[in-house]
Amino acid sequence: MARTGDRPARTPQVLKGMRDLLPQQMVLRQHVIGTFRRVFERYGFEPIETPVLEYLDVLTGKYGEDEKLIYHFQDRGGREVGLRYDLTVPLARFVATHRHELVFPFKRYHIEPVFRADRPQRGRYRQFWQCDVDIVGTASMLADAEVIMVWIDALSAVNMPNFVVHINHRKLLQSMAQVAGVPEAQAATIHRAIDKLAKIGRDGVHAEMVNHGIPPEAADRVLDLVALEGEPAEVLAELRRRLAGNQLAEEGIADLENLFRYLGELNADPAHYQLDLSLARGLDYYTGPVFEAMVKEPNIGSLGGAGRYDHLIGMFLGEDIPATGASLGLERIIDVIQELHLLPQPRTVSEVLVTVFSDEGLEASLSLVSQLRAGEVNAEIYLGERRDLRRQVQYADRKGIPLVAFLGPDEIAAGTVNLRVMASGEQVTVPVSAAAETIDRLLKQERSGDGAAGQ
Amino acid sequence: MARTGDRPARTPQVLKGMRDLLPQQMVLRQHVIGTFRRVFERYGFEPIETPVLEYLDVLTGKYGEDEKLIYHFQDRGGREVGLRYDLTVPLARFVATHRHELVFPFKRYHIEPVFRADRPQRGRYRQFWQCDVDIVGTASMLADAEVIMVWIDALSAVNMPNFVVHINHRKLLQSMAQVAGVPEAQAATIHRAIDKLAKIGRDGVHAEMVNHGIPPEAADRVLDLVALEGEPAEVLAELRRRLAGNQLAEEGIADLENLFRYLGELNADPAHYQLDLSLARGLDYYTGPVFEAMVKEPNIGSLGGAGRYDHLIGMFLGEDIPATGASLGLERIIDVIQELHLLPQPRTVSEVLVTVFSDEGLEASLSLVSQLRAGEVNAEIYLGERRDLRRQVQYADRKGIPLVAFLGPDEIAAGTVNLRVMASGEQVTVPVSAAAETIDRLLKQERSGDGAAGQ
Repeated sequence: MARTGDRPARTPQVLKGMRDLLPQQMVLRQHVIGTFRRVFERYGFEPIETPVLEYLDVLTGKYGEDEKLIYHFQDRGGREVGLRYDLTVPLARFVATHRHELVFPFKRYHIEPVFRADRPQRGRYRQFWQCDVDIVGTASMLADAEVIMVWIDALSAVNMPNFVVHINHRKLLQSMAQVAGVPEAQAATIHRAIDKLAKIGRDGVHAEMVNHGIPPEAADRVLDLVALEGEPAEVLAELRRRLAGNQLAEEGIADLENLFRYLGELNADPAHYQLDLSLARGLDYYTGPVFEAMVKEPNIGSLGGAGRYDHLIGMFLGEDIPATGASLGLERIIDVIQELHLLPQPRTVSEVLVTVFSDEGLEASLSLVSQLRAGEVNAEIYLGERRDLRRQVQYADRKGIPLVAFLGPDEIAAGTVNLRVMASGEQVTVPVSAAAETIDRLLKQERSGDGAAGQ
Repeated sequence: MARTGDRPARTPQVLKGMRDLLPQQMVLRQHVIGTFRRVFERYGFEPIETPVLEYLDVLTGKYGEDEKLIYHFQDRGGREVGLRYDLTVPLARFVATHRHELVFPFKRYHIEPVFRADRPQRGRYRQFWQCDVDIVGTASMLADAEVIMVWIDALSAVNMPNFVVHINHRKLLQSMAQVAGVPEAQAATIHRAIDKLAKIGRDGVHAEMVNHGIPPEAADRVLDLVALEGEPAEVLAELRRRLAGNQLAEEGIADLENLFRYLGELNADPAHYQLDLSLARGLDYYTGPVFEAMVKEPNIGSLGGAGRYDHLIGMFLGEDIPATGASLGLERIIDVIQELHLLPQPRTVSEVLVTVFSDEGLEASLSLVSQLRAGEVNAEIYLGERRDLRRQVQYADRKGIPLVAFLGPDEIAAGTVNLRVMASGEQVTVPVSAAAETIDRLLKQERSGDGAAGQ
């Protein structure tokens, strides 16, 4: 191809809506991903991976009109291919592909980037990471309860404050439309309107429904149902009365009764979940309970969505396998962690910079840095060609390395090393043989204090 | 678009040359990636991330004729874009983009997938992972020594046997061609021929050179130089005599003398590196030392390549920044670990399955699983709808979960739990309050033994 030949200096641009992550961002990101992985594995969710590229028709027909946001092209073999749009559809394809190699109920997690050619906005990117957990092969509400529990534990583990998992049921939404006398084809209009309740209020939602041709009385009946609030058991009992005789409602209520019972028995903190009859998640493929993790105080909004999708795998297999799952948006969560300072944010992985006094002193510095690494310290040796000490200390300071080790002729002669804590200026000279241990102690001291070095 | 509409069952195919990774593969993979990350961070390499998609002209003009393997297309905004082909060119673009935010010398690692529309073969995929470390902003051979050291530590940490980092210098290769009287334009022919020395022998290489129009005497002179073997210091001294007066040779030899000196002072195990004058890495952009990690016994071949590329960043910046780096191929390394059983290969992240005796017993099982998770045990509760115990034990067996917890009416009444070690059949009944601790002990015992449970 050599399409652009040998032009000299190319503009080093990143594509619109995409971005690089710098070390300081990555250190926090890896910490969050590591925490989520640990929590997911604590519940027995297993890691899997699927390719970034899929046959395009694996992806199409699942996302409604958002399907137009799929990146797609023809590869050199003439195949229509697309970049994955989420991790749920690839999971459904994966389960169909590997059905005979998997043990069911199959619990998997998957933390990787997905791609959407969406209009870029603040906090919304064209490549972003999802953190998914799913349970495939059981219709038991225990699976849905586990998915909610793992969310509660994962968000708690990154110190997320005041989050609440809102819970509703697709069948309840459908039954409300039936009871209100709204034709099947208009049900989606109702769900979209209800979804705006918090934003535009009861009158606004009522007006929107009426504008879409729903009779005013029907809109009122739906809004009266949606307005029910309180203890899940009480609200569900009230719904059972009001929607008596409606088959979908009875199925949805029975599911939710089981779900809330299991959450109680799993000791879920009631502050972290609630029944929310106005929750109407968008995706077409949900069939049962739907969930959304939200933070309203401060007003952060949604951290992720979830729900049961008992027919999606059937689109690949020709035979349904029940499944439920949840997806957290990594970027949003990390933005919140940074804004609210929920976790320490070290700027670097390095714990100590070993300086080089001179070419003669290099051997001692190399020997020290090897010894520190063997002692499980993250240790750098200064690699610049100009070795004045001021420049080396400045390097540690700019990178945020908490400790600097000095080895001048006196220290080398005495077999010692001088360690400086960058934040406090505290200095200590110890035998080289005790350096790793001393560094460990100084780091612990730094991290337990206000720790400017850890900022 | 809705290009494929609502066809019922789609064939769940993975694209040619791509693949899914199942939990058992992922558990090992995550262990290896975690090990590499830990070693890279021990040296102060910082994590970064770049987008999968780049402007196509960021990628072109760097890879020679292999450029045709880049996946590329026009996005919806009419931009020519490509999937990254390696992690080195994106790094060069990253450094140019963020030059003023980075602290130099800049050390980064990057472990992510890359994409090549190559002919698929056994062990070669179109999406595969690279594990890169690079040091940008210094011409010091200390940086090259650090890159070799981190390779040695990383490969040692996954128990790779008998690996050797072969080391050569691009300038030495060039000088040999000069000394042999081969015109500049034919130098690449010589490098390609030399690269096959191990495979086709001296006579074969000689014939190939002559076939390409190199005079037989010139071919002999090159092959005599390449055949030099022994202690790096001695070989370099001999080369200094034979290539005396050649500017490129003197620069290359001086670099390598420093490099081997630093490796010695960093206590690198001499069994793991050697000067190999026949090593001629392919990529156009190398300018200094080049490295390749190889295992010859058993005959595994290359695990990764590396080298110095002092002009690549200049292609983006218009001004050179020296850099050196190394790339390990994750797939190849994992294949070797599996074939040679270099690491334990647990089949699941789960440590214990909590069974459910009956619907009445469910509450006790849910309470136990919550308690175990709080005690840092990776605990699953059986989620299937049909709960005969045989089925539950079979589930644990098929997944490879090492322990199963039973809570029947007797145990529930007594506040105890019965734990079974799947591999040995050993059973023990303990108070629920001691369950987490007992599980911890049983797992340690399993792992320290021959541990069929860990297989």
